[in-house]
Amino acid sequence: MIRYPNGKTFQPKKTVSSQNRQKKPLSYSNRGMTLEDDLNETNKYYLAKQIAVIHKKPTPVQIVNVHYPKRSAAVIKEAYFKQSSTTDYNGLYKGRYIDFEAKETKNTTSFPLQNFHDHQIEHMKQVTAQDGICFVIISAFGQVYFLEAEKLFYFWERKEKNGRKSIRKDELNEAAFPISLGYSPRIDYISIIEKLYFSPNP
Amino acid sequence: MIRYPNGKTFQPKKTVSSQNRQKKPLSYSNRGMTLEDDLNETNKYYLAKQIAVIHKKPTPVQIVNVHYPKRSAAVIKEAYFKQSSTTDYNGLYKGRYIDFEAKETKNTTSFPLQNFHDHQIEHMKQVTAQDGICFVIISAFGQVYFLEAEKLFYFWERKEKNGRKSIRKDELNEAAFPISLGYSPRIDYISIIEKLYFSPNP
Repeated sequence: MIRYPNGKTFQPKKTVSSQNRQKKPLSYSNRGMTLEDDLNETNKYYLAKQIAVIHKKPTPVQIVNVHYPKRSAAVIKEAYFKQSSTTDYNGLYKGRYIDFEAKETKNTTSFPLQNFHDHQIEHMKQVTAQDGICFVIISAFGQVYFLEAEKLFYFWERKEKNGRKSIRKDELNEAAFPISLGYSPRIDYISIIEKLYFSPNP
Repeated sequence: MIRYPNGKTFQPKKTVSSQNRQKKPLSYSNRGMTLEDDLNETNKYYLAKQIAVIHKKPTPVQIVNVHYPKRSAAVIKEAYFKQSSTTDYNGLYKGRYIDFEAKETKNTTSFPLQNFHDHQIEHMKQVTAQDGICFVIISAFGQVYFLEAEKLFYFWERKEKNGRKSIRKDELNEAAFPISLGYSPRIDYISIIEKLYFSPNP
């Protein structure tokens, strides 16, 4: 054991932190961070380590009125939020195109499909048809899931045929891969892509 | 020759249109369209024909103040333009990641490199390192050019070493591929990608 001159024991921060993480699985409900924060941190890590280049797209905004004051930056005085026609995140890993959407729910029994809109599903189908790697990251039931787009389409079609409007917890556990939360990267979704698309025996 | 009952000859519209285009090469200087308009139309065409999925990213905006009026949409009352940390266009073609920036100049002798900023060049280097297909589309001297990112890096490094701050017209003609402008798609940059990256003898 190492002791500081003041008698306090030295605790290597990273190790302790990652040990804690291992023991107590993280959940978004009891942390100050959002899923988006953690994904942004994860993407920063991938970029810095030259593992992947993934960015969140800017929020689409319809700009109506801009003022150009003298000697200072242009100010947008009137603008409106637009619905995105694509997903929020895209980029590349080992030359392949990566595309995903991230969603959270506080529901305890199912994940509501109203979290997606038609345009996003349409976009994901176009990406899949063009051989892109497309999926959704879902934070639900104290767990983060990696759900391939094709599996999402199944639940979406069921809804379109007047079936359930949500994915039941047990269905999600069956269809999706759990992503273990860590310190760095926080949500290592690339490790799942590596296994699914780049390993000889997935 | 085919004649309508009223005596007028039948002219297949598309053929006539594309013949006209062939005879008189288009240039941005004498048209009402911008390079961005034509790229958006081109990308719509690729999407509709299931050739490629390429979108322009929304303009990044820093939102400071939003009003939420009763019974109507949220209004952004104060926001500022942010510098993008990436390029404007990305997507995929045959599973490969595509990333590019589009720039115009009215200069007649050279293309100024100040059209790019450090962050964009940095992003293009990250994409290239990750085996993405990265390039710039330049509208200059009455011509539209496809310049591979690696070639742009050469001119950028030269500037960084206190060399020329622009690409001379003859240098661009040497380094870049001309893109023939058409009716549909208007700027067929995918045909160049197909030749460079997917054909056995490029």
